[in-house]
Amino acid sequence: MKGDWPIQSKTPFVGGHEGAGVVTAKGELVTDVEIGDHVGVKWLNGSCLACDFCRQSDEPLCPKALITGCTVNGTFQQYCIAKATHVSKIPKGVPLDAIAPVLCAGITVYKGLKESGARPGQTVAIVGAGGGLGAMAQQYAKAMGLRIIAIDGGEEKGDACKQLGAETYIDFLKSDDIVRDVKNSTLDGLGPHAVLLIAPSEAPFQQAIGYVRSRGSIVALGLPPHAFLKAPVFDTVLRMISIKGSYVGNRQDGDEAIDFFARGLIHAPFRLVPLSDLGEVYELMG
Amino acid sequence: MKGDWPIQSKTPFVGGHEGAGVVTAKGELVTDVEIGDHVGVKWLNGSCLACDFCRQSDEPLCPKALITGCTVNGTFQQYCIAKATHVSKIPKGVPLDAIAPVLCAGITVYKGLKESGARPGQTVAIVGAGGGLGAMAQQYAKAMGLRIIAIDGGEEKGDACKQLGAETYIDFLKSDDIVRDVKNSTLDGLGPHAVLLIAPSEAPFQQAIGYVRSRGSIVALGLPPHAFLKAPVFDTVLRMISIKGSYVGNRQDGDEAIDFFARGLIHAPFRLVPLSDLGEVYELMG
Amino acid sequence: MKGDWPIQSKTPFVGGHEGAGVVTAKGELVTDVEIGDHVGVKWLNGSCLACDFCRQSDEPLCPKALITGCTVNGTFQQYCIAKATHVSKIPKGVPLDAIAPVLCAGITVYKGLKESGARPGQTVAIVGAGGGLGAMAQQYAKAMGLRIIAIDGGEEKGDACKQLGAETYIDFLKSDDIVRDVKNSTLDGLGPHAVLLIAPSEAPFQQAIGYVRSRGSIVALGLPPHAFLKAPVFDTVLRMISIKGSYVGNRQDGDEAIDFFARGLIHAPFRLVPLSDLGEVYELMG
Amino acid sequence: MKGDWPIQSKTPFVGGHEGAGVVTAKGELVTDVEIGDHVGVKWLNGSCLACDFCRQSDEPLCPKALITGCTVNGTFQQYCIAKATHVSKIPKGVPLDAIAPVLCAGITVYKGLKESGARPGQTVAIVGAGGGLGAMAQQYAKAMGLRIIAIDGGEEKGDACKQLGAETYIDFLKSDDIVRDVKNSTLDGLGPHAVLLIAPSEAPFQQAIGYVRSRGSIVALGLPPHAFLKAPVFDTVLRMISIKGSYVGNRQDGDEAIDFFARGLIHAPFRLVPLSDLGEVYELMG
Repeated sequence: MKGDWPIQSKTPFVGGHEGAGVVTAKGELVTDVEIGDHVGVKWLNGSCLACDFCRQSDEPLCPKALITGCTVNGTFQQYCIAKATHVSKIPKGVPLDAIAPVLCAGITVYKGLKESGARPGQTVAIVGAGGGLGAMAQQYAKAMGLRIIAIDGGEEKGDACKQLGAETYIDFLKSDDIVRDVKNSTLDGLGPHAVLLIAPSEAPFQQAIGYVRSRGSIVALGLPPHAFLKAPVFDTVLRMISIKGSYVGNRQDGDEAIDFFARGLIHAPFRLVPLSDLGEVYELMG
Repeated sequence: MKGDWPIQSKTPFVGGHEGAGVVTAKGELVTDVEIGDHVGVKWLNGSCLACDFCRQSDEPLCPKALITGCTVNGTFQQYCIAKATHVSKIPKGVPLDAIAPVLCAGITVYKGLKESGARPGQTVAIVGAGGGLGAMAQQYAKAMGLRIIAIDGGEEKGDACKQLGAETYIDFLKSDDIVRDVKNSTLDGLGPHAVLLIAPSEAPFQQAIGYVRSRGSIVALGLPPHAFLKAPVFDTVLRMISIKGSYVGNRQDGDEAIDFFARGLIHAPFRLVPLSDLGEVYELMG
Repeated sequence: MKGDWPIQSKTPFVGGHEGAGVVTAKGELVTDVEIGDHVGVKWLNGSCLACDFCRQSDEPLCPKALITGCTVNGTFQQYCIAKATHVSKIPKGVPLDAIAPVLCAGITVYKGLKESGARPGQTVAIVGAGGGLGAMAQQYAKAMGLRIIAIDGGEEKGDACKQLGAETYIDFLKSDDIVRDVKNSTLDGLGPHAVLLIAPSEAPFQQAIGYVRSRGSIVALGLPPHAFLKAPVFDTVLRMISIKGSYVGNRQDGDEAIDFFARGLIHAPFRLVPLSDLGEVYELMG
Repeated sequence: MKGDWPIQSKTPFVGGHEGAGVVTAKGELVTDVEIGDHVGVKWLNGSCLACDFCRQSDEPLCPKALITGCTVNGTFQQYCIAKATHVSKIPKGVPLDAIAPVLCAGITVYKGLKESGARPGQTVAIVGAGGGLGAMAQQYAKAMGLRIIAIDGGEEKGDACKQLGAETYIDFLKSDDIVRDVKNSTLDGLGPHAVLLIAPSEAPFQQAIGYVRSRGSIVALGLPPHAFLKAPVFDTVLRMISIKGSYVGNRQDGDEAIDFFARGLIHAPFRLVPLSDLGEVYELMG
């Protein structure tokens, strides 16, 4: 092992990229990570730690960012490597398989909620609340003292959202006026202070412009190819709306997201499968 | 005079709405404004001062906002009325005609610069820098310690921008790649920290998405009818760009904008014409 | 009734000042409050709404602030008056006696927690956690997603704090090194991100300087006469500690504090006594 | 050279510690610094870049911080070493001797002004404005759009402060009521928004508590041994004053402070002396 690279093993993977495991080797310069430590490997595998963005804790924007499974090898196999300054420490008592989704989805939605600027006691609408990312977003939102309007389609998802802490569920398959319904589900009818758009696309974004509270923010997560956010200038200016993109969390966000999990506030369903079943998993996801 | 309405006279108008004048009468409940005081009347003529927005210093977003010349009479005549809690005090030594543009354009661009989040020493690109609003924006930006990239068309405007303090002028009539040229005019090539879009429309907005620094903000001012801001999700998310609408300033912004003017840091050209020439002025503006 | 004063009745008082009641009369200019509305009257009875502080939502700092029971009559009697723009709306379903403590203690501790800058998931130490203000502070802290280190004296108070949500209780009667014990009760041993000092005096303040996390804040609440905060320059500078005074909440803080109560997240014990027993109550408080 | 240490030479020192020089060697892992680059070495020579503080851009608070000339050798000699991720890039056109004071005093006062929270157009009082740190603080304040009240003793210092951009000079040798005089030198008599205390000691701090604007901040710089800040609880709470310690800047502050210098906005007098005269210099400083 050379320089500042530790190595991991027995990593239970999520989505084929990020995951959690045990350090089995480390570079000679690594002092903060010990062999045997439990660590998480995130989408952001490493960064320069010296550029304009890294200096201001925006490591994900580093032009030299290393991406797990993309520009760094180690996906879908027993061992992977990661920069020691970028791995997240995981307390020993936390199951490595259960926390794996936090290293990817958890950090991403937690960061999005932080970026929204919503304060404890304020309301956030989560669009796509019933999916995997949405379920985690609801749990983080609740742990952060936020009130939740869950938006998704179907009764089954509605039940799940209510159980996760949503105060209101808006079923877009049934609502004939989502803007009105979302606004009406806030006490003063002025709409939620923030909107979290998971997998943003044009129609839900247009609706969000309509129902977000004046001075509120709309945070777009995820990267659907070729999608656009189209906002009318008039409403955006007159109501002083902020539209923000949120990518993945930095190292501090990662540690915070893990801490919420370690305290028992976040749960994500998961299933362990052997690497040999990888092909089937991909088919199921298709 | 009833309640909390003062009255003004000798108001030199700008754009037919906002202006500055001398208080000639006041309501019986008014204690903070005296007859003879010099005051400015802004776009926002009054607000409830008790709603969710007013309580948080966002008076322009008040659902009961009164608008000068729209929902309150008093435009293009010798006298007008305004809510005493909303007029801006003007120091006696400041010429009422010279400061009139500050009550409208000045406050608007100053607010936009504040909303951008750009800090002293950082760089802001001003799109439409050569016009009336743009010229004021440059002067406020300079007084706030910001560095300016001025964007507009034509050599004459370029000369004017340089005189107002712009470090760089990008002529969109000559540039064959505005995104590249704006980025190159920052020391590290990463682009300006903020963009002020005066009269936002689609092409300049798309360019701004391209050249704004990652984590930077694009602030849209002004209300062109039927215009849209269309942003690619991919870039917005991956580069964590913020798109913000900024309407008009609140009362505090107004006082601050006036203070910069009173200190001699802001100059706007103006011409006094008698009310009888109003028709001609409108034709000239056409 | 003249001007913008509403009147209230059946006000259950707390501490002799703030309280909640029903509007029985209102001034002719009052449009946002109706007779029959349930409203709260706070320490801050009114302010000018136009000065440098009011314009920036810091009404409690207004030089013309009116104080309930001090500069405005109406304490310890059936009716009181209050400025319509300053009363807090209370939802009809909320019991007026139960919410009375929120109008005083609740708002004060909620504001202190906001001023601390602690974010959801971070840790706040509450000094004097076992008293009336402390109990409310713990409930608000928990609702805001904060983790709590409660500091007070005696086992009984310790049990009460644990029930209110404190993760740790430090008994200053038993600890032989409070600084060490508080730091050790944070996962990384670096101390809490913020400290709320209820009724600040010199020894607890000195200890707080010792155990607060570097870059953390110490918020002083309450006004013990002749007390001083004495901080060593060396530690304060080297560890970049912030020491902040927090007075009472503004109108927005009031509404937010009430909203947490209305959602069932805050409980304060109270006892209704007839006005004729006022003398006895004062003796009990002595 | 091993690992990530570059080496410097021809370093003109200031105060015996920080300075600027040319890179003459570098470790094998260093990619962002080239031999021949001009770089600055700051008080903070290195930090772990992975702890709670480093992750949030507070490198100076890192428990493993390396300090130039204290825990890292290289003071008062031709060569010194520094961590590559912590050196500040200096543009080639900037004289290395002239910029040396920025690496120490410049960054410190610039950071203090940032920590004060004062916005462009607001007023900062600088206590000890006439000394070396004070002179730099005034220049940075001016470049940041702040208005300056300079406080020091003697006419000569007053002349110097006025030349550096102070709007007002308060001579503490002549004033019989500094609190009154400082407050009166703000337009509305409410006092400055922030106070920068260079070398804080008890009397000036007590005065600052008296004259700082309500909601304002007092920032203490420098580390006089055994000094204390003693604040009355009553005023601090009632006027919501913030007292902050500010240590040295992080890497980003360093780059920003250098950028202001490179733009010609900061000047500090200096004198080059051979290393052999070091003894004499120390005597002069005594």
